[in-house]
Amino acid sequence: MYVILVYDIKERRVQRMLKLCRQYLNWIQNSVFEGEISPVKLKELISRAETIIRPDEDSIILFKSREEKWLEKEVIGYEKNELNTFI
Amino acid sequence: MYVILVYDIKERRVQRMLKLCRQYLNWIQNSVFEGEISPVKLKELISRAETIIRPDEDSIILFKSREEKWLEKEVIGYEKNELNTFI
Repeated sequence: MYVILVYDIKERRVQRMLKLCRQYLNWIQNSVFEGEISPVKLKELISRAETIIRPDEDSIILFKSREEKWLEKEVIGYEKNELNTFI
Repeated sequence: MYVILVYDIKERRVQRMLKLCRQYLNWIQNSVFEGEISPVKLKELISRAETIIRPDEDSIILFKSREEKWLEKEVIGYEKNELNTFI
């Protein structure tokens, strides 16, 4: 399935979340990831993310689409996920 | 169509972008909006957004799905779009 993941978490936990998400998905913008992922791998990502976040302070939202082709992506302005940004 | 909009823009332009996006979509998380919108209204939003951003510094990404039902949404942790957050 195709997933878009956005997180809004406290600064002190961002680095760990960033590192985790980059193991499963593609960073495309500040706090935003996308990519193809299997249900098993997504479950693994979520359970690992739950060990990082504080559920009363942090928020992760996942948008899941069975097919990437059902989602049309448009970038306006500067496309940050290119190799010109090293994070 | 159903749209997810994420932006990553310089601090000094965030307020204007936030105000604009809230006229068309629902704020769900820091820099993230979603909602049903017509092609005409989306075009209007994009052209107004382009008057705000600096394309060489700022980035807006739109994910468009013809049907909301093709997108399954999952929130982990704190759901920020409830009325408990006033922005």
